[in-house]
Amino acid sequence: MRIAEIHLTPVAIPDKPLLNCKGVHQPYALRTVIEVICDDGTVGLGESYGSIKALDGLRRAAPALVGLDPFHLHELKSRVIAALPGGGGINAKSAVADHKLTDVVASGFEVPCMDIQGKLLGRPVSDLLGGAVRSNVPFSAYLFFKFAAHIGEAPDEWGEVLTPDQMVEEAYKMVDNYGFRSLKLKGGVLHPDLEIETMLKLREAFPDHPLRIDPNGGWTVETAIHIARKLENVLEYLEDPVIGMDQMAQVAAATSIPLATNMIVLEFDQIAEAFRRQAVQIVLSDHHYWGGLRASTHLGKICETLGLGVSMHSNSHLGITLAAMTHVAAATPNLSFDCDTHYPWTGVDVVEGSPFTFRDGKLDVLKQPGLGVSLDRQKLADLASLYEKTAMKERDDTAYMKLFDPAYERRVPRW
Amino acid sequence: MRIAEIHLTPVAIPDKPLLNCKGVHQPYALRTVIEVICDDGTVGLGESYGSIKALDGLRRAAPALVGLDPFHLHELKSRVIAALPGGGGINAKSAVADHKLTDVVASGFEVPCMDIQGKLLGRPVSDLLGGAVRSNVPFSAYLFFKFAAHIGEAPDEWGEVLTPDQMVEEAYKMVDNYGFRSLKLKGGVLHPDLEIETMLKLREAFPDHPLRIDPNGGWTVETAIHIARKLENVLEYLEDPVIGMDQMAQVAAATSIPLATNMIVLEFDQIAEAFRRQAVQIVLSDHHYWGGLRASTHLGKICETLGLGVSMHSNSHLGITLAAMTHVAAATPNLSFDCDTHYPWTGVDVVEGSPFTFRDGKLDVLKQPGLGVSLDRQKLADLASLYEKTAMKERDDTAYMKLFDPAYERRVPRW
Repeated sequence: MRIAEIHLTPVAIPDKPLLNCKGVHQPYALRTVIEVICDDGTVGLGESYGSIKALDGLRRAAPALVGLDPFHLHELKSRVIAALPGGGGINAKSAVADHKLTDVVASGFEVPCMDIQGKLLGRPVSDLLGGAVRSNVPFSAYLFFKFAAHIGEAPDEWGEVLTPDQMVEEAYKMVDNYGFRSLKLKGGVLHPDLEIETMLKLREAFPDHPLRIDPNGGWTVETAIHIARKLENVLEYLEDPVIGMDQMAQVAAATSIPLATNMIVLEFDQIAEAFRRQAVQIVLSDHHYWGGLRASTHLGKICETLGLGVSMHSNSHLGITLAAMTHVAAATPNLSFDCDTHYPWTGVDVVEGSPFTFRDGKLDVLKQPGLGVSLDRQKLADLASLYEKTAMKERDDTAYMKLFDPAYERRVPRW
Repeated sequence: MRIAEIHLTPVAIPDKPLLNCKGVHQPYALRTVIEVICDDGTVGLGESYGSIKALDGLRRAAPALVGLDPFHLHELKSRVIAALPGGGGINAKSAVADHKLTDVVASGFEVPCMDIQGKLLGRPVSDLLGGAVRSNVPFSAYLFFKFAAHIGEAPDEWGEVLTPDQMVEEAYKMVDNYGFRSLKLKGGVLHPDLEIETMLKLREAFPDHPLRIDPNGGWTVETAIHIARKLENVLEYLEDPVIGMDQMAQVAAATSIPLATNMIVLEFDQIAEAFRRQAVQIVLSDHHYWGGLRASTHLGKICETLGLGVSMHSNSHLGITLAAMTHVAAATPNLSFDCDTHYPWTGVDVVEGSPFTFRDGKLDVLKQPGLGVSLDRQKLADLASLYEKTAMKERDDTAYMKLFDPAYERRVPRW
């Protein structure tokens, strides 16, 4: 059995004007839908980034994978590396954290191969990862400060969220609609005092919900330590308060709050240093750049071995990713925190039907063979058409922010 | 699909009078052959230790696994742990390194489940581990000082090996018969000066063969450092020269020769400390106590992540184990050294036919579904009958040595 064809379809997902320390989400988030088709007709689905570099890497590597046995995942990686010499990173030069193109591309194709394996076996992907240890997976509410509307558009259903009180309202809506337990705030947006106030108000409103904040490295060490002191008994973890291993180690040494990261530990090679320096206590896994689902289970075991916690990172995504995240989370015994997901912000999908219903913040692990989702061709065509129509081919939250506020400048750290 | 029946058959394998720092191998080595039978008739094979504690643990856990889905390997481990409260270690109290009974028992049943999975898929087990990265797996020659014969028996075909020159002859025989490249000496037997002389003579006779020596912790720190200095440019690695994390760290700090271990890093929980203290540079994996084949691939990735080398440990074993070792070694990209195996010393088997032929010291990865081996009922019955007939139910190299030399005493360290 061999891979016969690969189809890559870039899509644009309508997004909300969500704020972070680099600017604001544009009207679309970009993804690539990946179809791997075997010579027996079995189809595996995957989903990855939609940036030019990621899409280009996927396109350049795809021909090298035709003829590959979809069980030969080590070879998949070798072929991707050979196809993308000097692949570099997928993000813009200004990115403070970057992902290796080869890791991203190998990850993008590994998931469809696992989907194929599951379909051949008539088994959910989680069964290929040691089996689900939980029948449903807990996710967290991903809270964003946001503008009321995109430029030139009417306000969306979430409205403006730019104050601590508005954020509490957003959180109530998230919890009421989806039943989430953990609440994660995308921070680094407002003045630190306002974000401290926001977290304290969330604590007051939700006394039993685990809370976390993630400013994407938007704070100085001083600011981060100040905030950590104010929130010492409030947070379950503090995610990437500062940029770089040195600064993370400094903050970690100054607070009892565990530090989580998806910015300084992005690949296996960075784990040893982070462990040695005690720079992080929780690694946020993400199968889109860690190497896929099998690699994510390795990461889980490594974290268990080194006494690190595991949680899961998310970008704006569709249902193929959500299914994959759910399978790997279900098969990670030491998943110690609720997983992040942007899915409630997405509102559209490319998969058939509505396979995802959050109950008490949790998603059932799909039991159908493979990932358990299939493509809705019309939905895919619609989002592909959006991609073709929009001029946006690269994410740039800062450029978009300048349309709201011409004086806005990107600063790292911001506060 | 569920596990319907489990059969456990203890067997005795005729063994040679091989010497180590604790004594001499008895006339038999003990193993347990494991058959896991699913409700659809699919049979998975495994092989584990044959000691009373291991056999008893396997027997006590087996009923708890009836009804288990053979893909639910995390649950397998949970059920084993629940079935063996306070399981303890499998070795005698005097053992300097011990294996958790729960790890051993879970490992023993994981392999048959992987065999079943492969058979269901019509795929070799290596395909369930990411695919083989090599079509054949290199093994090392396992060199032992030895007596000519067991008590009351005629000399075996290997004769007496008690001097450096005799060891060179043994090595020639191993290399001529099997084509091994790496040569591993079981040390801690003769006076250190004689073992140094042995290694130097092996180097002279085999100038291009990687060499290693393993005294099973039989040396003091002083002796180990002395030997390391004498063999600084001779050894590819030095295996467990001393006992315990403290002493290993002392020796590691004093030599440029990498230290390998299957005695101080036996389980995932010991890796962090060994890494932090730089006590070992190479971990010898062994699916019989690390948790099975999937756990062994986790171990491989952990070693890669921490910059540690990976090689593979062996006890006296049959072909089920050899097949399993070959699959996991084939699917471990960073297997950095040739694997150990006692198989050339074994001479008998329980598997049908003769699936294993060493060519240039390597074994082809079996391509049949699952492990690729099946039971020969007559061979199994013969070795099971040997087990029933012999009074030996526990390995005790020291007690047997006293029959050769009543003045012999176990000493750790010996030299």
